[in-house]
Formats: sequence, C-alpha cells, structure tokens
Amino acid sequence: MARLCCEPATIEAAQIITEVTTRRRESRTTTTTTMAATEVESASPTPLATPMSAMTPASARSVRWEMDLEEGGGGGELERPLLHRRGTNTTSQMAVVGANVCPIESLDYEYKVAFLWYISCNAALAATAAALCAYISPAAAGSGIPEVKAYLNGVDAPSILAPGTLFVKIVGSVLGVSAGFVLGKEGPMVHTGSCVASLLGQGGSTKYGLTWRWLRYFKNDLDRRDLITCGAAAGVTAAFRAPVGGVLFALEEATSWWRSALLWRTFSTTAVAAMVLRSLIEYCRSGNCGLFGNGGLIMFDVSSQVTSYTAMDLAVVALLGVLGGLLGALFNFLLDRILRTYSYINEKGAPWKIVLTVAISLVTSCCSFGLPWMTTCTPCPPEFSASGRCPTIGRSGNFKAFRCPPGQYNAMASIFLNTNDDAIRNLFSGGTYNEFGVSTLLTFFAAVYSLGLVTYGVAVPSGLFIPVILSGASFGRLLGMLFGAPTGLDTGLFALLGAASFLGGTMRMTVSVCVILLELTNDLVLLPLIMLVLLISKTVADCFNKGVYDQIVRMKGLPYLEVHREPCMRSLVAGDVVSGPLITFSTVERVGTVVDTLRRTSHNGFPVIEDQPFAPAPELCGLVLRSHLLVLLQSRTFTSGRVKTGAAEVFRKLAPFDFAKAGSGKGLTVDDMDLTEEEMDMYVDLHPITNRSPYTVVENMSLAKAAVLFRELGLRHMCVVPRTPGRPPVVGILTRHDFMPEYIRGLYPNVLRE
Amino acid sequence: MARLCCEPATIEAAQIITEVTTRRRESRTTTTTTMAATEVESASPTPLATPMSAMTPASARSVRWEMDLEEGGGGGELERPLLHRRGTNTTSQMAVVGANVCPIESLDYEYKVAFLWYISCNAALAATAAALCAYISPAAAGSGIPEVKAYLNGVDAPSILAPGTLFVKIVGSVLGVSAGFVLGKEGPMVHTGSCVASLLGQGGSTKYGLTWRWLRYFKNDLDRRDLITCGAAAGVTAAFRAPVGGVLFALEEATSWWRSALLWRTFSTTAVAAMVLRSLIEYCRSGNCGLFGNGGLIMFDVSSQVTSYTAMDLAVVALLGVLGGLLGALFNFLLDRILRTYSYINEKGAPWKIVLTVAISLVTSCCSFGLPWMTTCTPCPPEFSASGRCPTIGRSGNFKAFRCPPGQYNAMASIFLNTNDDAIRNLFSGGTYNEFGVSTLLTFFAAVYSLGLVTYGVAVPSGLFIPVILSGASFGRLLGMLFGAPTGLDTGLFALLGAASFLGGTMRMTVSVCVILLELTNDLVLLPLIMLVLLISKTVADCFNKGVYDQIVRMKGLPYLEVHREPCMRSLVAGDVVSGPLITFSTVERVGTVVDTLRRTSHNGFPVIEDQPFAPAPELCGLVLRSHLLVLLQSRTFTSGRVKTGAAEVFRKLAPFDFAKAGSGKGLTVDDMDLTEEEMDMYVDLHPITNRSPYTVVENMSLAKAAVLFRELGLRHMCVVPRTPGRPPVVGILTRHDFMPEYIRGLYPNVLRE
Repeated sequence: MARLCCEPATIEAAQIITEVTTRRRESRTTTTTTMAATEVESASPTPLATPMSAMTPASARSVRWEMDLEEGGGGGELERPLLHRRGTNTTSQMAVVGANVCPIESLDYEYKVAFLWYISCNAALAATAAALCAYISPAAAGSGIPEVKAYLNGVDAPSILAPGTLFVKIVGSVLGVSAGFVLGKEGPMVHTGSCVASLLGQGGSTKYGLTWRWLRYFKNDLDRRDLITCGAAAGVTAAFRAPVGGVLFALEEATSWWRSALLWRTFSTTAVAAMVLRSLIEYCRSGNCGLFGNGGLIMFDVSSQVTSYTAMDLAVVALLGVLGGLLGALFNFLLDRILRTYSYINEKGAPWKIVLTVAISLVTSCCSFGLPWMTTCTPCPPEFSASGRCPTIGRSGNFKAFRCPPGQYNAMASIFLNTNDDAIRNLFSGGTYNEFGVSTLLTFFAAVYSLGLVTYGVAVPSGLFIPVILSGASFGRLLGMLFGAPTGLDTGLFALLGAASFLGGTMRMTVSVCVILLELTNDLVLLPLIMLVLLISKTVADCFNKGVYDQIVRMKGLPYLEVHREPCMRSLVAGDVVSGPLITFSTVERVGTVVDTLRRTSHNGFPVIEDQPFAPAPELCGLVLRSHLLVLLQSRTFTSGRVKTGAAEVFRKLAPFDFAKAGSGKGLTVDDMDLTEEEMDMYVDLHPITNRSPYTVVENMSLAKAAVLFRELGLRHMCVVPRTPGRPPVVGILTRHDFMPEYIRGLYPNVLRE
Repeated sequence: MARLCCEPATIEAAQIITEVTTRRRESRTTTTTTMAATEVESASPTPLATPMSAMTPASARSVRWEMDLEEGGGGGELERPLLHRRGTNTTSQMAVVGANVCPIESLDYEYKVAFLWYISCNAALAATAAALCAYISPAAAGSGIPEVKAYLNGVDAPSILAPGTLFVKIVGSVLGVSAGFVLGKEGPMVHTGSCVASLLGQGGSTKYGLTWRWLRYFKNDLDRRDLITCGAAAGVTAAFRAPVGGVLFALEEATSWWRSALLWRTFSTTAVAAMVLRSLIEYCRSGNCGLFGNGGLIMFDVSSQVTSYTAMDLAVVALLGVLGGLLGALFNFLLDRILRTYSYINEKGAPWKIVLTVAISLVTSCCSFGLPWMTTCTPCPPEFSASGRCPTIGRSGNFKAFRCPPGQYNAMASIFLNTNDDAIRNLFSGGTYNEFGVSTLLTFFAAVYSLGLVTYGVAVPSGLFIPVILSGASFGRLLGMLFGAPTGLDTGLFALLGAASFLGGTMRMTVSVCVILLELTNDLVLLPLIMLVLLISKTVADCFNKGVYDQIVRMKGLPYLEVHREPCMRSLVAGDVVSGPLITFSTVERVGTVVDTLRRTSHNGFPVIEDQPFAPAPELCGLVLRSHLLVLLQSRTFTSGRVKTGAAEVFRKLAPFDFAKAGSGKGLTVDDMDLTEEEMDMYVDLHPITNRSPYTVVENMSLAKAAVLFRELGLRHMCVVPRTPGRPPVVGILTRHDFMPEYIRGLYPNVLRE
C-alpha cells in the first residue's frame, strides 16, 4: 500500500482521510480492558520515521497514531506535511469510525473511493461478525443481558454460557464495534463476565482440557448462580469502570434472589476487578498498550458548572424526564416490533442473518459518512479563532474538520464520524453551548435512535447502553438548547440528564444507572438532579410497557418468574394447574421401570412413594432428580429383591461429587445406560438419593401464594399434596412452566384477568 | 450576663474562651436538617453593633458568630478587640464543644472557672437527655438501628417506633450531641426516619389527634415494613447527605427481605430527601438558618492528592485493613461487655441511669478539656508563619490556639475541643503531614476509642458512626505517619482509609459504607483503595465476632431470624421443635370457647379445623389471627346454632378496613369484650376471617429447610401437618421463637453443633 504522506492528493481528499483518523484526548480514552488488546493495536506515539517493522506485529496493517497535539508532541511531525497548520499534522493511514481501524489510502481522483473503502471495510467486519454468530454460536448475538437475567432466574437454556459463546461474544463484539455499528460493548461484556464465571462454576471445561479439581466445590446450581451474578457485576465494572455501579447492576437488573452474602460477594468481585483495571491503567500510563493506557478511572470527567438550581430548572429537568420516559417507552415498543420482524428473517438460515447484518452495516455507513457530508461547516468558536483552527484534541473540544476549511469544523462529523466514547464526551462537554446546532443534534438524534433500533436484532453481539446514551445525550442537549435558555443549566448537563432519562425510560433501572452515571462523570453535586430525572422517566415509561430486557426475555420465550403474580392466580388454587399424568417411583423400584420411564418422559423430577412393605400405607417419601437417577443407575447398585440397600452401599461406589452438576450439555443421558436384561429385572433403592424434604403445598393453596413460595425459594419442583385423606399421597408436581401466565390463561380462558 | 468584650480579662483566659467558640468554614458545616433548627440558633454574620434584640428570638441567649476570616468579613470587627491580630478577632460569648452551645463568661480569676462552666453545662445537658430517656421513653436510648433492624426482620417490640420515642429521640439526640459526648447523630436519625415512617404507616396518631384517612391503605404489616425501610434510608440520607448511601444502607444493613420494588421505593424516598436537603441548603445559602446554611452537599470534600499508587502502598493499606478489622472486632467485644455491665446499673431504675450518664459526661468533659490542657503548643506550619497566626477557618486547616501564644496552635484542641464534624475534617485534610503529632494522635485515638465504648450504653440517643469514624481516622492518620513514609500516600488519605477500616471492622457493612464515604468525600479515584480496605477489615473482623448491630440485637434478646441456619437444624425435623399443647378452633365455634381461649393464652394465631358436619373427616381449614377474632367478636356476628353465616353477613357489619393493623398498642384486647352470658353460648362462624392458604410443612421436613421457608417468606405462623394419615390434621404451629438457636439447643442439648 502506498503511504498517504508520499502521494500527491488533493487537499480535500486528504483532509477527509485525516478526519476519519482517530483523534483522542490524552487521558480520556475509554477502551476497556478486554477490548484493549484486540480492538486497537499499537498506539505508542511513534514518529513516522520509525520503521513499520518496529510496530506491534499483531497489527497486520501498519498503524500510526498521531501525537497528542496539546502535549507538544514533537515526535509527531510528518516529514512532508500536507496541510500547513502551525507545523503539525495529524495524518495517518488509518481511519477509525466506531472503533473500526481500517487502512485508508489516498487516491488522486474522487472522494467516493474513500467512502467506498469506508463502507466496504465496515461491511466486511460486519459480515465476519455475523458469520461467527450465525455459524458458531447463535447464542452470542445480541446483548446477552436478557439471557443472564433468565439464567439467574433459574432458566438453564442451552449454550447461553458455553465456552463457544464466550469466544464468539468477545471476538464478535470487537468486530461489531469496529464495524461502526450504533451498538455498545457493555451488554456483551456483562455476558462475557457471566460466561467466564460459568466456566469456573462448572469446574473449567473438559472439552477444551481446562479443568481444575478445586473448582468442583462450585459444581452446584446455587454456587454457579452466585458466581454468575458476580461475573455480571465484574462485566459492568470493566465496561464502565464503575465497581459500585457493577454491584448495583447485578442486584437491580441481573439477579432475582438477593442475599446479604451475595452483596458481599459481588462487592469483593468488583473490588478486585477495579484493582486490576486500576493496575492496568497504571501500567499503561506510559503508553505501551494502545489507547487503553491513556484512560483514567473516570471516563467522562464532567466538571460541574452548576452549584445551584432553581425551581424553573427543576421544571425543565422534569420535562426532560417525561419526554425521556415517553421516548424510552416508544423505543421499547418499536424494538419489540423490529425484533419480531427480524426473527422471521433470521429463521430462514445463517446466510440471511449475514445479509441482514451487512444491509444494516451499509445503512449505518451511509448515515455516518453521508450526514456529515451534507452538513455545512461551522466557524470555530471565537476562543479558538486566534490559532486559525479548531482543536481536535484536549479539554476544549474534539472538533472534526471533515471537508471544512481551516478555522471551521463539521459539527455532524464531530459526533457521528467519531468513536462512540468521544461522541458521548463531546455531547457531555460543558461550556460549549454553540458547538452543535439544533439541526445537527436533531438529525443525529433521529439517526442514532433509528439505527440503534434496527441494529440490536442483527446477528452481532450488541449492547443497548451506547445507543441509548447517545440518543439520550443528543436529545437532552437539543432540549437544553431549545428550552434551557431560562435556566442557568449548561447544555452539557442537559445531555447528561438526557442520557439518564433515556436509560431510565428504556432499561427502567434506577440506583444502578444513577451510580454508573456518577462513576462515569465524577460529579456528585448532580446527584439529586439525576435521581429526579430517573424517577420521572421510569415512572412515565412504566405506564406503557416493561423494561427492555424484560421484554426481550419474554419475547425469547424464556420462562421468567416475575415477582408480581398475575391477578388471575388469586382466583385459582395449586391443584387447578397441576397437569397429568403424574409419574411416581416406589422407594425401591424395578430398574427396568426406571429406565423406561426416563426414556418415555422428559421430566426432571419424580416423586418417590414409600409403600408396602416399607410403610403401612402409601406416603410421600420425597423427590428424586433425573440426573441423580442416571448416576445411580450407572453405578449399578442393584439388588435382586425388593430390599433397602442403604446409603452406605451406594456411597461405597459413588462419591458425593459424582452427583455434582455437570457442565452444560455434559451430563449423562438415558441413552448412555447400557444395562443387560438381567439388570433391568433387578431393583434399585432410591432412598439414598431421594430429597426427603421437598417443599409441598396443599392442593387448595391459593395459586398466588404457591407462586410466592416457588419464586422466593427459587425452586425447581414443588409437590402438591392432597387435602383430604385416603387419596394417593401426592397430587402432582408444579414446575416453573406451570406458573407462566400464558399457560394459566390457556387453561382457564375465562378466569378474570382483573 | 456581662459581655465578654466589655470586661477585663487575662489574655489567656479570654483566649481559651475564644477557642471553645465555634469556628466553622464557610461551606462545610455539617449540621443536618433535623438538627439545624434546634441545635444552633441564629448564625448570620451579625456585626456586633447590631442590637441583640435583632437576633433570632428562639435564642434566649445572645449568640454571635464570627465572620469567615478568609472571606474578608468586614462586618465582623469587634469594637474593642482583645487580641490585636491583623485587626480581626473571633471572640464570642458562646462556647461550642461537640455541638454544645452554652454561654461562657469571662472572669477575672482562674481558668478553672471556665472549665467548671464547661463541665457543668455538659453535665446539665446530659442529665436532661438522660431524664427524658429514662422517664419518658427508654426505647429512645442508644442508636436505634438494632431495633429498626429487628422490626424489619419481623419483630414488633413495643414502643420502639412510637410517637413518644420519636420525640425523645430528636430532643435527646440534640441534647446528647450538645453535651459533648463522643457519639453521633447518624444512628438516631435513622431511628427518627423510621419512627416518622411508622407514624405514616399506622395512619397517623390517634393519641395526638393526627390522623389522615388516606393513610389507612398502609395499615398492614407489609406496607409498614416498606415504609420503615424507606424511613431508615431517608435517615441516612439526611445524616450523611448521601442518598445512594441511604438506599444501600437500607438494603445492606436494615432490611431482611429485598425486592426490586423496595429498591425503587427507597430510591424515590432518598431522591426526595436529597432534593429537600438540597433546597434547604440553597435557601440557607444566604446564611439565614444558622450553620446549616453554610453547608454543601459534600460534607468533607477531600481533593485527591493521589492519582497513582504502587504495590508498596497497597501493602500498607492492607495492613491498615487488618489492624482496623482487629480493632473493630475488639471494639465489638468490649462494647458487648460494657453493655452487659451497664444493663445491671440501668435495671436499678431511672435515677441510676441519670447518674451513669452524668458520670460519663464528666469523664468526657475532663478528657476533652484536660487533654488539650496537657498538650504542648506546636508552631504554625511555615506557610502560615508570615501572617503570624494559624488560620482557624478555611481550606488550610482549622487550628485551635487553646492556651497557645500567637503563631502556635494546640493540636489536641484542634481535634478534641472541636465539633465532631470539624475534627473529622481536620483528620481527613490532605497535605498537612505535621499538623498533628504522633503522641497527639495516639492520645486522641485512645481517648475516643474508650469514650466511644463507654458512651454508647448510657441513656441518651447515641450513634456509633461518629466515634468509629473519629477513632478510625485518628488511627489511620497515626499509621500513615508511622509507616506511610515509604508510600506516596497522604496522611489525610490514611485517615480516610482508617475510618473505612474501622467502619468495616465494627459494622461489617461494605457497599453502603463505601458509597457513604464516597458521598462524604467526593473522591471517586480512591474507590478501589476504599473497597480493598473494607474487604480486608470485614474479613478479618468476621473471624472473631458478629457486626455490632447484630450483636446488640442478640444482646437485647430480640428474636432475629438469621439468614444462616444453625448447623444443628440440619439434624432435626420440623416436628421436633413443635411445642404443645396445640389449641385449635372449629370453623364454627362457640363464642365462649373463643373468648376463654383468648383469655387463657397469649397465642396470636390458631389453626381452624373443618369438622363434622361441614366435612366428613377433620381437615385443616386455615389459620385465624387473634386480632381478627377480636374484631369479629366485637361485631357480634353470632348465630344460635352451628351454621355457616357466610362472608356476606360479616362484611355487612364490618368493612375490610376494620381488620386493618392498628397502631402499636392500640388494637383491641380480649378485656375489651363485654359479651353477655347469652352471647357466650352462641356460635361464631370463623370461615370469613380464616386464612385458607397458610404455608404448611410436613412434620418430617428438615428443620433447616423449614427455617428457610419461614424466613424467606417472612412468615409469622407456619402449620406443621402430619406425614401419615389418620391423625389430627395439624401437628402444631411454628413461630419465630421456635427457630431461635437458644431454644433448639435447650430442647436438644446433645444435638451436634458441628
């Protein structure tokens, strides 16, 4: 590839290429730990005289980063600068949009070639990400937060936390962000954290030869649940550098059961994550690990320009909250419709998924390149006019000159043709009232809001935080310009409050969003305003629909147990929803019967009945799990007659760890049993593996109260026992599916829905 | 009273009196909302020329506040200054120690009179507070957090949230803080918040004629529990100006059951509290509401002096965490012993309580006056030597000149003879390495640690936060001076970390303490260090004993249900702890039987058995509550024969609100029933008031699992049903007391304690 600086090029074309080059401020980059290594390669300020071979080999393409202009980057001079501006130039061979690093060459004819390069790089990255998701791990597409939420509610869907998903999630997220989509890496990082935790919780991976013996202590659902909660918290910590926000996110959004011990565990996890993050930032301060080294713990340090606000200010802020709530609810509504439409396309097969992704990538590229194209140039603010150019790096702003002559800048390019993090920083920046015009903000808001909606459902790992924050911030800034005049509040503050209102309106989180925003901006004085706006937007949005993650969980058909019972449950009793036929075992059962039953049904829990000769009348002994039955059958602890063998006999052959929860998809199945005909005629004593204290409800217990019991204790099976004597000792088994409102309404269509 | 400025006095005596005068910085006062009105009166910078009558009438005594020296307080000149220092003087007639405002006159003989005035003012205030607590509301003594914690666990102890307690708590706390005790107002504010919430939850107070009809919707235990959780959160918000910390405190320390809705409700409450606080601060910015008007939302704004720390720093910080954990555990151990000793004294009667309180007050006064007395003077830091005096107000320090010549200051007086808030601010201040010597810090630490221990049990409302923070901060600063040299960390930062380690070591809170400290100091960069130190100190202290509030709950004998089940429960079943005799009612019962049973027992719940002629064999119909029975009896819905009357008949006479939970101590009692002999022979149908879906467990259910069910669902009664048919349909009732480890160990002394 020919080098930019060695070729003849028109001033304008070179300028565009210069502009799509990344421009980051010294201490505020936001690339996060996991991403740092893969997303951008080599970022030490290398003078262009340095031979290319001296750069990080990982970067197949030669990458050059401009020096920080304000830190007097003397080493950054080009040998033959194209544009003579105070002797420095920021040209490089790389273009970055989103966080897409792709080589741009200068050509001596028209700009459209630059655009074609840009659009095709993006499309290629998008197609790769989509292919990974479509062919290797479909579970890695999307945010992952709904799946983690469902897992922590007790739903074990296949492969949502598998090692393959982890791999595709990380690589796909890097590719997706690089492709310049309007999507975030925060949701995927939560999923990544949970996947790592799940790997630890299942004792490593036997498939990939990574097993640790000591991890077997976590091989049970309870500890795995706690670990995954901690993993989600660590993900938020890594994504936003917000350890307290991570704890609160785990508590408020992710987990369904909260215990004091869990608080303490998530806190420890995020403390360690914060220390590691901090150490890495410290280590990278010297600039030897790319953009990451320049970052600080506070991503968007907003120095508060307000110390007081009046009732009038509160009124405008309340209006912002109301509008944020309305637009957030609308976002959720539209997202639901779009996802349902996409599911038809995605069902047609992997190629269609890739086509859809590439199509959205093309639209996004056209918007992010075309809209700045159509935007007129704005003169630099008066304070910079002396220098004759708008600073692109440093505290004072991050102006992009895209197609504009010196002394002017392109406002749209400064927020759209930029990294997401820099765009947020620009929108949040204070004291910059006129930096972005009303039409720019309106166009950007409309574009980001729509692109965020259409991007989420495509087959790449994609978070919702960034689109929501971007559209909220632009909307807030717009509102601040239109209605903020009577107030003394800064437009940057309006942008922050707008982001809060949109987050409240779509995700319906309160404390965690509040703390995450505080940890992002380090401005505690704003706390009451942020709280107010979150309260209002959540309240308004709750009138229309559910939070975006709840909505996705429901749309995906995951049987999520809600805290709020359906009103119809109050008029039913537990016995009403028991579905038959009930399959029970005797405490000492014929092996053949057990195997046949396991083959015939897919049930996972079976009541065990103590009968003659062990009890005078049939009574409920307890509950046995399919997985434990299989382990017991595998051990062949059989007797020829109907006698108790006792626990000692079983545990002579089996250790307690043999009954431990296997990794996903790795447990025994009934087809693994190869029993002889003789063995099939023998008996097996189920006493040792029976859970003797299953939770039971009487058949005439209110269904709503049974649901409370089921959910609060996080049960998998619940036995329904008869009220009157003289009947079989168990009426049926209730599982999570029996409490789903759709099922109950199907059974009793006429029951009052109140 | 003669005026100080008009009397002859020795330079030194006047100087002491000057020094005990409050010196506060313009924007950092810490008096909280509730306290503001009563604790200090009138604080606008009034020139002494202003007539006394122009000052706030609430102040019986004339109060003068010095001007902020650094704001060029031109209006604050004395007409006849005693000490000629740059033309300003800070003399006033009031002395403030703790937050005790009492008049100090100058006399023309010895200092001991000043000391006598000081000690007797403190003793008088202490005696008043103790008298209020001893005679009006003993429940108001102490912190109140353990009681709130127990209430939220489901224990309804008499009068802990009564209006009388609320009154004594507020007034007593003001008096206690004013008396210069080493105690805080934070715990009492949490209790105050909960009392206010409880008043709302019981629909106002009928006794004091404050009832609102719309509040009747909250007259049930569930809504009251939520309200009181919100009240506790609001208390923390008001005390520390930490709304997010308030939410987390409520979740981590106060509440036993957490729901998503509760998070959202506490968040709303603290948001409103923060807005109100913020508005009051705004309103008071002009200085028209005492010291409160000068405050900001951030109480101790610690401008971070560190941006990086090394492994060596972490080692020292870890050491601080370990020592903080050890000293915190020791604090809890000693506090337990001291409280047990005090309980013997307090049991002897109200006068003894007052004597004990006054004795502790005398010791505290002697320490806080005597220790500075014995301290040698320290020369002002070189940067202030030019002005010839140490600044007492402003960012640079808060030196107290107590008995020291100009150009010197008394280090001990600067932290001990000062308000608690200013002392904390001094200890946290950065860049002041030599401000306090090793011996000063060691003496102060020992004194505050011991005084904090002996003060908590006396009969005044007293919080533990301030003593723990003060001793932690002095210990941390001490450690920073001794071992901090190899690290680059500031001694002020060590003080902050020391406070964190002591809070972690005594209270065992993590996330909430972390967020409260952040909200107090506004320094997010310190977050990882604070998290680390909290983790270590809590872990270390947990090896020795329980958190201080848990310990007090247990010592007070409140039946608190722990999350962790006792190991001995695993070897028992539910039927093992059922105690007899079981009292049941028939669904249609003789009125006389009901009344006699209610007279004879103090049980609050009774199983109701459906029997012939309503069922072929006896079966469990449900559970009826004493309070509902009394309401039903009061309505006289009786029949002459054993027939069902039906719900319609009952609800013709009674509205659902008649069954609402009454305010504490205001419900019906069985002695209120005045039934005739005829009525006693009639029948009452219990069907309409029976809870038909009580939670039940089978008698052979593991006791540990029954305890999980009982606690997680927050039950009051749980029915134990037989396993085998042919027996009475209910074996017994389990209540909270049946799950207490002491009770179980009493029943089965030989059961393994593991």
